[in-house]
Amino acid sequence: MDPTTSLPLVLPRTVRWGDCDPAGILYTPRVFDYMAEAVETWFRDIAGVAWMTLIRDGRHGAPTVHTSCDYRRPMAPDLRLAVTVELERIGRSSLTFRLLGDDAQGQRYFEGRLVSCLTDLKAGRAVPIPEPIRARAEAYLAVCRVD
Amino acid sequence: MDPTTSLPLVLPRTVRWGDCDPAGILYTPRVFDYMAEAVETWFRDIAGVAWMTLIRDGRHGAPTVHTSCDYRRPMAPDLRLAVTVELERIGRSSLTFRLLGDDAQGQRYFEGRLVSCLTDLKAGRAVPIPEPIRARAEAYLAVCRVD
Amino acid sequence: MDPTTSLPLVLPRTVRWGDCDPAGILYTPRVFDYMAEAVETWFRDIAGVAWMTLIRDGRHGAPTVHTSCDYRRPMAPDLRLAVTVELERIGRSSLTFRLLGDDAQGQRYFEGRLVSCLTDLKAGRAVPIPEPIRARAEAYLAVCRVD
Amino acid sequence: MDPTTSLPLVLPRTVRWGDCDPAGILYTPRVFDYMAEAVETWFRDIAGVAWMTLIRDGRHGAPTVHTSCDYRRPMAPDLRLAVTVELERIGRSSLTFRLLGDDAQGQRYFEGRLVSCLTDLKAGRAVPIPEPIRARAEAYLAVCRVD
Repeated sequence: MDPTTSLPLVLPRTVRWGDCDPAGILYTPRVFDYMAEAVETWFRDIAGVAWMTLIRDGRHGAPTVHTSCDYRRPMAPDLRLAVTVELERIGRSSLTFRLLGDDAQGQRYFEGRLVSCLTDLKAGRAVPIPEPIRARAEAYLAVCRVD
Repeated sequence: MDPTTSLPLVLPRTVRWGDCDPAGILYTPRVFDYMAEAVETWFRDIAGVAWMTLIRDGRHGAPTVHTSCDYRRPMAPDLRLAVTVELERIGRSSLTFRLLGDDAQGQRYFEGRLVSCLTDLKAGRAVPIPEPIRARAEAYLAVCRVD
Repeated sequence: MDPTTSLPLVLPRTVRWGDCDPAGILYTPRVFDYMAEAVETWFRDIAGVAWMTLIRDGRHGAPTVHTSCDYRRPMAPDLRLAVTVELERIGRSSLTFRLLGDDAQGQRYFEGRLVSCLTDLKAGRAVPIPEPIRARAEAYLAVCRVD
Repeated sequence: MDPTTSLPLVLPRTVRWGDCDPAGILYTPRVFDYMAEAVETWFRDIAGVAWMTLIRDGRHGAPTVHTSCDYRRPMAPDLRLAVTVELERIGRSSLTFRLLGDDAQGQRYFEGRLVSCLTDLKAGRAVPIPEPIRARAEAYLAVCRVD
């Protein structure tokens, strides 16, 4: 990973008109797009392996096996969020991410978790987290703990 | 609710090509569309109040305050699921749904939870579940317990 | 195709809460989900080849090369549409579909077109429409012309 | 509009994993999300009126009445696009946008059109484009013509 990147990873995200429902607030399934895209970016920019590379080169994937979200405040169009990607736990095959959505004033809008499981797509079976993903995840976890 | 409807509510759902990602399986955020649409149907067909009616007539809404999902098996295009809507708990303002996705052989693909909170949209505050939603939810809860 | 199916293909579609935006009407990009899913169903049920089979067996795909839509009336949650799939033209590599969204009273909500091009995915090049898709498309086109 | 903004409006957009389908390329309906979000941004940043403000203050909306897209090249995850928003035509009630998706080398991936119609949402009827939207659209059109 780029040594000048400030960690943990924080991604900007503007709530779009089309993400919102007739009540004028985020249609709640859309927060999982925000979360999954943040984890996708973590794999590409922090672990150094884009999901597309993962399936092409190693026949591996990183499907989500569990995810959850608590919604703290309603999110309206044009709200600018900072989505923070924390790594909470590294298992044999799984990575547990914590995703936080805050505005510029530090107000929290959502807090979620997403567990990715490194998987052999042909066999449909969990595999040990391959290098260099594991080493980079451990470095990232250390940073998250310090913060 | 229509007295001839068999309960609990079970909704058919075919996994679409466009719900799936380059790994050939359901892009995991999409399961929350399946779950939210099942709860939307529960409100309209069981509680007797479509969400659009709720916001137009009473300035109320039923936003999701918490949701989660465990993914048990990968879901591929054209998989035909039956999504069962169970009601687990009725609070002062909230309804906790359990959503199950099974195929025709009874194999489980996902199991999720979704908590809706009846809300005064102007004040942004939880309100007691209004009638007739509460009475119908209680009748439905009783059915789910028996099953 | 099942000889008892009434033709052309007409698919039911209910406008969902989550398909609509803060103006309370369909977020216009969603109509292309309706259209693409109708064409997906046409390939599976009329041409007899699901898209997943097409990419797995023959390394072929049927990507959209052009699409358009005219919106005739606003679509609100719970609107029940019948989406009619007409085949307008069969080219060397392409199939031009016309998609119509009507309610039970025959009022038109949208009218779109979608051109699928049979493609060799590795080479990234259009290929002649393979059998049995061509034969079935020709039979279907004849039916659409009579109607 | 900010006088230092270079015109026409060009928005960065990365193709996401979840925007792509099992063929590994953009699920074609998603391009309309890219296009609609670009037009949403144009209204907010160029015309100076966010869609949410439009429906709250004036009971107006800017629904799409027509849209189309030509797909020139397949789009894969992590492709970085620049989406250019050109204004082609200003009618009594409508604005016709041309949306271009190019990569950093100037290769074109898609070219679309989207016609927004300024509408009285209660009456469900087109209205003349209100100020200051019209004046700003005319200034923008002049810039697009020069370029």
